[in-house]
Amino acid sequence: MRDHFEIRDHDAAGRIGELTVPRAGVTVETPALLPVINPNIETIDPSRLRSEFGADMLITNSYIIRTTEDVRERALEDGLHDMLGFDGAIMTDSGSFQLAEYGEIDTTTTEILEFQRDIGSDVGTPVDIPTPPDASREQAASDLDVTRQALADAEAVDVGDMLVNAPVQGSTYPDLREQAGREAAATDLDVFPVGAVVPMMNSYRYDDMVDAVAAAKRGLAEDCPVHLFGAGHPMMFALAVALGCDLFDSAAYALMARDGRYLTVSGTEQLEDLDYLPCSCPICHEYTPDELRAVDADEQEALLAEHNLHVTFEELRRVKQAIRDGDLLELVEKRARGHPAMADGYRALLDHADQLERIDSASKGTFFGLSHESARRPEVRRHHDRLARLSVPDSLLCTEYGTPSEHDYDEVWRVVPPFGPFPRALSETYPLTAEVPDRTDAAAERAAAEGIRALVEANPGTEVTLAHEGWDADALGAVPESVTLENLHADADRADADTHAGGDADSPEADADEPAESRSESE
Amino acid sequence: MRDHFEIRDHDAAGRIGELTVPRAGVTVETPALLPVINPNIETIDPSRLRSEFGADMLITNSYIIRTTEDVRERALEDGLHDMLGFDGAIMTDSGSFQLAEYGEIDTTTTEILEFQRDIGSDVGTPVDIPTPPDASREQAASDLDVTRQALADAEAVDVGDMLVNAPVQGSTYPDLREQAGREAAATDLDVFPVGAVVPMMNSYRYDDMVDAVAAAKRGLAEDCPVHLFGAGHPMMFALAVALGCDLFDSAAYALMARDGRYLTVSGTEQLEDLDYLPCSCPICHEYTPDELRAVDADEQEALLAEHNLHVTFEELRRVKQAIRDGDLLELVEKRARGHPAMADGYRALLDHADQLERIDSASKGTFFGLSHESARRPEVRRHHDRLARLSVPDSLLCTEYGTPSEHDYDEVWRVVPPFGPFPRALSETYPLTAEVPDRTDAAAERAAAEGIRALVEANPGTEVTLAHEGWDADALGAVPESVTLENLHADADRADADTHAGGDADSPEADADEPAESRSESE
Repeated sequence: MRDHFEIRDHDAAGRIGELTVPRAGVTVETPALLPVINPNIETIDPSRLRSEFGADMLITNSYIIRTTEDVRERALEDGLHDMLGFDGAIMTDSGSFQLAEYGEIDTTTTEILEFQRDIGSDVGTPVDIPTPPDASREQAASDLDVTRQALADAEAVDVGDMLVNAPVQGSTYPDLREQAGREAAATDLDVFPVGAVVPMMNSYRYDDMVDAVAAAKRGLAEDCPVHLFGAGHPMMFALAVALGCDLFDSAAYALMARDGRYLTVSGTEQLEDLDYLPCSCPICHEYTPDELRAVDADEQEALLAEHNLHVTFEELRRVKQAIRDGDLLELVEKRARGHPAMADGYRALLDHADQLERIDSASKGTFFGLSHESARRPEVRRHHDRLARLSVPDSLLCTEYGTPSEHDYDEVWRVVPPFGPFPRALSETYPLTAEVPDRTDAAAERAAAEGIRALVEANPGTEVTLAHEGWDADALGAVPESVTLENLHADADRADADTHAGGDADSPEADADEPAESRSESE
Repeated sequence: MRDHFEIRDHDAAGRIGELTVPRAGVTVETPALLPVINPNIETIDPSRLRSEFGADMLITNSYIIRTTEDVRERALEDGLHDMLGFDGAIMTDSGSFQLAEYGEIDTTTTEILEFQRDIGSDVGTPVDIPTPPDASREQAASDLDVTRQALADAEAVDVGDMLVNAPVQGSTYPDLREQAGREAAATDLDVFPVGAVVPMMNSYRYDDMVDAVAAAKRGLAEDCPVHLFGAGHPMMFALAVALGCDLFDSAAYALMARDGRYLTVSGTEQLEDLDYLPCSCPICHEYTPDELRAVDADEQEALLAEHNLHVTFEELRRVKQAIRDGDLLELVEKRARGHPAMADGYRALLDHADQLERIDSASKGTFFGLSHESARRPEVRRHHDRLARLSVPDSLLCTEYGTPSEHDYDEVWRVVPPFGPFPRALSETYPLTAEVPDRTDAAAERAAAEGIRALVEANPGTEVTLAHEGWDADALGAVPESVTLENLHADADRADADTHAGGDADSPEADADEPAESRSESE
């Protein structure tokens, strides 16, 4: 067990955790966003990052500090915390990026880790090799050998109570990522950055990012805190957290501000293109777009950086609330519609539904069917697995409507797309309390048909009748031939009568989420 | 032409407009949200509504004012604007809701409109009959007769330069809604509230709301400003604006605050259930959930009301920016994932794709394929209509990849799901500049197949070959039998080579929306 990381709550593969950083005397709640501080350029005073934005941890680059003489002297003399004026935890990077970018750097893992220790870093980083996406397999594997040695070197350094990162590389090779994760988890190092995903995100390859992280997570243990190195755009927090990422770092807030860019949860806008500010943060509440455009460049950069941080931390709070509510995948659904590449990312995530299912909670908030993709969620997979284990009578009616007043079946079960059939006794259990659209989609019907198939295959002796509301041919084609079909929509009277006893999961019922509106307040 | 309403910009059936309210000397930019003010209970000082939240118009109830003696006297003496301390435009309701609720009221259209004029209302309302959803057809039709008479009575009142509402009723009967819309548009009245949709929204029947509004809009003229009476929850703004609604009113912000409820763009939360505040508004920036829970009841109500208004106006700004950017339907896509009933609402909206298509811009922002539903967007419909009019050679290759280096076809066209085929010359025109997921979905392939069909049916003499990336059986089944099929995925070498000349619409290219992130700021 890694006793500096404790998981408090979880949803899908995402979790709310507490990372104890002993050297800083600080406990950081995760998911957390570490603003990147360039020791040479200060966009927002680090002390404000904690008091105004709630950042308990930041990240800066020890290699840059070490190679900038006056900064190095100050850091060694005063310590990083005093130098930056930040009393939270400070993580430091090692120069690995510079190594990858320029081919060589003037340090070693041992040396740079000792330097990080000496300047008072709370979480240090060895010199790993961030292999870019689509590198050759040979390259990725040989880089991994170097990274493995760096981790071993790091283990040998006397770092005191500084935590140490164990980066997980492997380019776009899932087996290498998984192996790297397993090896990193086997060290006595502390925090696990999944590295070299930035080039994927820069080219909007969110599906490849998902595959890389999912592979790394298969190798890492559940108690490993995972950092998605270089990822700080709020559009992908929900997706990355759902995969099991705990830490993010953002230079984006400052870099984009310098470029006149304005972050939102679904992308990045140019300030010059905005006629309205789609945000209520203190900056957007105080300024109009014209006013923001009118201030001088430095002030505009600072104001945009503040907005960017507000929207970033806001999304992180939204993600945490979703984990508490058990509707993180519903938030991922929303964010998947921010950009076609995010839709790809969500579709890729669902390719790993089995992996998510193994660690997901068995019971959480109300499952919302929101799209065709919802049919591929881990909760649907789990229900289908469970269907094979339920006890089933000799003759069974599975119906989208209620129990007929007269019938000869041994039992009558409900059918709700995308889950498929279940005994009425389970109606009030998660996820079968689901709310789903009235306008059922083909993917949900198809998944329900697969539920019927799972039931029939586990119980070949049972005579099953399926009464459905006019399912799509594709869905009906997936129902085993032994099942008797009855189309409820062909019998309009019955459909209108809607005599079901067990409630109708399709009708959104009044609940705590209901918007109570009236024609006028006084009514 | 209604010269008090001018449309400045539009997207789908939504628009940014300017409603000139002559009596107030105010021009209100639409879409606009009118906070509801109860003359007896003031949650937020009306003057702050304009200065801090940007509300240029509010709504209050003249019937309540008239039946509350001291308020009536003050209103008659000081006028509404002084009484409420509001210098924007003021709309007044008539007591119709009270009529519907209690069976009778002590006034007539003539009397209450004269009263509204006398107290200085800027937009008055006659006494219409808000027929609830699912009323009998006879009831709906006879109520409509009364409403028609009320409109005629209203036309006869000397209202000076006060604008007058012409409510559109008709319950859940689309033909009655359409007829009511047509008759209202034929009066010389000014603003067109679609009435009695609140019960639909309260029971989450967003699809029925869509059908009712779409029907009313078919009857109304394009230059009629349309008010979705009683609708003020931000979750449905994008959907309602996309249908062509211009005005909303919200009592929700105050009523919900009284109940400890906290609005978001996807629903309503109970403050007591929140561990984090998923918002950056001045209230949420200043308080934690625990701090909000700790203040006394009146202050908590005021603070929640302010948050609720912030998130409401924020969403309205987001909707307007989306109209400017030409991506309103992309915003509707996102909001459709807030609740299963919103997914129903979006699916219902797409049932009216032809109606939207007739007024939608021919060219706007980049079309984003974001879900299976995207395949049903009006832009896809329009492209299919256009396919029948394009000139086509005798032999044509339609391919998801590039032009083969050697071939015998007269022309080679690209195929991009969900649009289907098009000549390369159109590649840079809207909507064919679309960005779509790499992981194409069955609905997009199916729509592309329908594009092929449209082309073939209009050009029966042309020999068409379709080279596809391993489409779904359902999509291939929709391709006419005369088309020669070639599966590019069966030929992995070719797929890898990807020799196309015209660029690949599937790969999200670097653009202004790209999140530029780097491992650390200093890199």
